[in-house]
Amino acid sequence: MKKLRVGICGWGNVATGLFNTIENNNKFIKSNGNLEIEIVVIGARRDNPKCDPGKIKIERDIFDVIDHDIDVLVELIGGVEVARELILKAIKNKKHIITANKAVLFHHGDEIFKEARSNDIKVLFESSVCAGTPIIKLLTEELSANKVTKIAGMLNGTSNFILSNMEEGADFKPTLELAQKEGYAEPDPTFDIEGMDAAHKIGILSSLAYGTPLPPDDFYIEGISKVEKIDFKYAKDMGFTIKHLAVSKLNNENIELRAHPVLIKEDSYLANLKSVRNGIEIETDLLGTLHIAGSGAGQESTASGVISDLVHLANSNNNTKEINLSSKKKLIDFLSLSFQYYFYIEAEDIPGVMASITSMFAEKKIGIESIVQKEDLKDNMVPIVLITDLFLEKEHDDLLKNILNLDSVFKVRSIRIEID
Amino acid sequence: MKKLRVGICGWGNVATGLFNTIENNNKFIKSNGNLEIEIVVIGARRDNPKCDPGKIKIERDIFDVIDHDIDVLVELIGGVEVARELILKAIKNKKHIITANKAVLFHHGDEIFKEARSNDIKVLFESSVCAGTPIIKLLTEELSANKVTKIAGMLNGTSNFILSNMEEGADFKPTLELAQKEGYAEPDPTFDIEGMDAAHKIGILSSLAYGTPLPPDDFYIEGISKVEKIDFKYAKDMGFTIKHLAVSKLNNENIELRAHPVLIKEDSYLANLKSVRNGIEIETDLLGTLHIAGSGAGQESTASGVISDLVHLANSNNNTKEINLSSKKKLIDFLSLSFQYYFYIEAEDIPGVMASITSMFAEKKIGIESIVQKEDLKDNMVPIVLITDLFLEKEHDDLLKNILNLDSVFKVRSIRIEID
Repeated sequence: MKKLRVGICGWGNVATGLFNTIENNNKFIKSNGNLEIEIVVIGARRDNPKCDPGKIKIERDIFDVIDHDIDVLVELIGGVEVARELILKAIKNKKHIITANKAVLFHHGDEIFKEARSNDIKVLFESSVCAGTPIIKLLTEELSANKVTKIAGMLNGTSNFILSNMEEGADFKPTLELAQKEGYAEPDPTFDIEGMDAAHKIGILSSLAYGTPLPPDDFYIEGISKVEKIDFKYAKDMGFTIKHLAVSKLNNENIELRAHPVLIKEDSYLANLKSVRNGIEIETDLLGTLHIAGSGAGQESTASGVISDLVHLANSNNNTKEINLSSKKKLIDFLSLSFQYYFYIEAEDIPGVMASITSMFAEKKIGIESIVQKEDLKDNMVPIVLITDLFLEKEHDDLLKNILNLDSVFKVRSIRIEID
Repeated sequence: MKKLRVGICGWGNVATGLFNTIENNNKFIKSNGNLEIEIVVIGARRDNPKCDPGKIKIERDIFDVIDHDIDVLVELIGGVEVARELILKAIKNKKHIITANKAVLFHHGDEIFKEARSNDIKVLFESSVCAGTPIIKLLTEELSANKVTKIAGMLNGTSNFILSNMEEGADFKPTLELAQKEGYAEPDPTFDIEGMDAAHKIGILSSLAYGTPLPPDDFYIEGISKVEKIDFKYAKDMGFTIKHLAVSKLNNENIELRAHPVLIKEDSYLANLKSVRNGIEIETDLLGTLHIAGSGAGQESTASGVISDLVHLANSNNNTKEINLSSKKKLIDFLSLSFQYYFYIEAEDIPGVMASITSMFAEKKIGIESIVQKEDLKDNMVPIVLITDLFLEKEHDDLLKNILNLDSVFKVRSIRIEID
C-alpha cells in the first residue's frame, strides 16, 4: 500500500470535512484506494471550533506548511492571489498540488500547470468543478481516446436551486434568501447568480477538452437575476423550462463558449436536473452523448473529490502527463453566433401595438416563429410573448433597445433558446 | 510518452472497431492519454473482409499471440471457457489483460483476478459493463473514498430498446425483430431478453462496490419477455413506466442483488433513459446520488473503453491494486425480500369475481392499495389491475397460482414496483 504525507492549507468547512472524511472512511480509502493518508500539518490562521485536529501540527502561517516533509499540499484556502502564490511556491518545493479552487485555476491555471510541468509535479483538481462528481477525471482520463465536440451543463448549484424553485412558482428574491438560509448561497451571492462561478468551471472544462490555454473571462457570461417567475409559465406553455447553462462546443473546429440562462426543452436530460444538482452532457465521436450528474457542492462531496485525487496520485506513475496546449482552436466571437430567442414584452393594450412591435423585428429581417398576446395585466397592460427564428447575436441589443423605445412598450426582456 | 505493445485476440466487429479507432483517433490518444499504442499481433481464426490489418502479424491460433513480445493482451473473442484459458495463460506469461467480456469475468473473475495478483499483472475491463461509458473506473477509482450503498440501472441496451418502444405503443415481437434488424439484438436474443446479460453486469459491479467475490448466477434474474404492451398503459395511468432494472444494494449490511422488470415512477431519472441507452444511479455516503449514462454498446464505444484501459495501464504505477475480497457481506435470500406488486388479471365479468380474487389476497393477509376494473375486453372478459401493499416475496408464486386456479380467471401476471 502506498502512503502519502499530506499538508492541508485552509481550515474552514471544506478542510474540516476532508479531515473528518479521511478519519471516518479510512477503511474504504485503504481497501479501495490502496492508500494510507497521513495528515502531517494543517495551515490555519485560526482554530475551527467545530473540529479538533488532535495532535496534528498547526501552522498559523500557511506558507510554513510547505516546509514540512509532505508529498502533497491540499489547497483549500480559496480566493485567487494568495492561493496562486502558495501553489507556485509549493510546486517549486516539489510538492504535488491538490486544489478545489476553480477561481485560482481559471485565472492562473496556465502559469500553474507550466510551473508544475517544469518541476515534474502533478496538479490535480477534481473538486474544482461540481465537487466530487468526477467530471474532471472523466474528461482527462476516461475519455482520452475521444474527440469531445460539446460540453453543456448546469454547473452552479445556487442558480439551479433558485431556478428550480421558481419553476415551481416561487419568486426570485425569497428563493435566494431561502438558498442563503439553507447554505446553498453565499451571503454575497453575486458570483453565483451572475454566472461567474459557472463560467470559471466551463472555462476549465473547455480548456481540458480541447487542449487550449484557459480562456480570458470576457466570453459571454450572463446570470439568472433577470429571469422572472412568469417566464417559466410561458416557457412551459411551449414545452420549455428555464435553466442556467454553461456551454463549450466545437463550431467549425473553433470554440463556442458561453454561460447564460436558456429556454430548454422540458423533457431533455438537463432540464430534469433539479435543485442543487449539477450535471453535464458531453458529446464525443466515440461515445455519443454521455451524461453525468451529482451533488455539486457540500463538504463531503468535495472531500470525496480531493481523496480521489490523492488516490490517483498514489497509484499513477511518475510521468507528469503533458497537457496539450498545442491546439490552434480559437474562441468564436459571441456576436457572430445565432440564436432563437424568447421575448417577453409588456405593452399598452391599444390598437396598433402589435404592428409596431412586429415591425421592429421586420426592420432587422428577423422572422417570428410564434407570437401570443396573453391575458391582460392590470392598468390596461398586456404581455406579449414571442419566439423568433434564428438571428445573429449582434442584432440583439439594438433590437431590445428599439422595442423598449416604443411609446407603448413598458418592459422587455429576452432569453436565448437552446435548441440541441 | 509511454508506449504499449498490444496483441489483440478476436477479429470481429469489436476488434476491427478498436483497430480503426486506434488509427483514426491516434492524435487524441497521444495528446490526451500520453500513450503510443503499437498493435503488434492479431489472433484471428479467419480474415475479416471489412478490415485490412496491413502489415500486422496475424496468428491463426489465438494462443500464439501470447508468445509475441507484447505488454498487454486485449481479449475480444467473447465466450467463456476458451477466453478463460487464454486469459489465464497470458497472465502466467506476464501479459497484462484488457477484456470487454462480461461473461468470462462473471463466471471466472475470482480465479482470473487471483492469478493476476499472484503474477503482479493488471486485469482491466472497462468495456465489459456499458461499453465505453466509464462505470467501472468510476466505481473503482473515482469513488474510492465512498461507501457505496446502492447501484441500480438499466444495463442491457436490447431490453431497454424493446421496452422503450413498447412504451410508445409497439408490441413485443415486432419490436424484437426491429431490434435484430437494427443490430441491437443478437439473432438468438435469449441472453439479453431473459436478463442474463444485465445480471452478469450487475454481478460484476456489485462485487467491485462491496469487495465481495463474484456472486453465483442463482440470484433472482427475470427478463422482459412476459411484459405486455397493455401493462404500460395501466402503469402510466398510475404515474409509472416499466423498465428492466438491475439492482445491488446494501440491506442491513448484506447485499440485495436482483435483475428483473419493474414499475418505476415515470418522472425518475432511470425512467427517462430511453432506447439503447444504459445508465446507472449510484448512492454513496459522500456523494449522495450520482448518475451516469451513455451508449451501452457499439464498436466505437467499446473501443473507447478498451483504450481508456490502455491509457490507465500506461499511466499507473506498477503496484497491482489489492482487490479487497475480505468483505463478510452475504447475498440476501430473495424470498425474504418484500415488494409492492402490480397485478394484471383477466377474468370473466360475472358477479362475485372481484370478491373471489380479493379473497386470495386476504387469505395471505396481503393488503391491496388500489384496484380498478378496466373497460371490458371481448367475450365477456374484464381486465382487473391492482397494486398491493408490500408483501414477502416467498408468498408471491403461491398467490399467483391461487389466482390463476380460480374458475373465473383466465390470465394473471405481476410486476414488482421499485419504490426508491
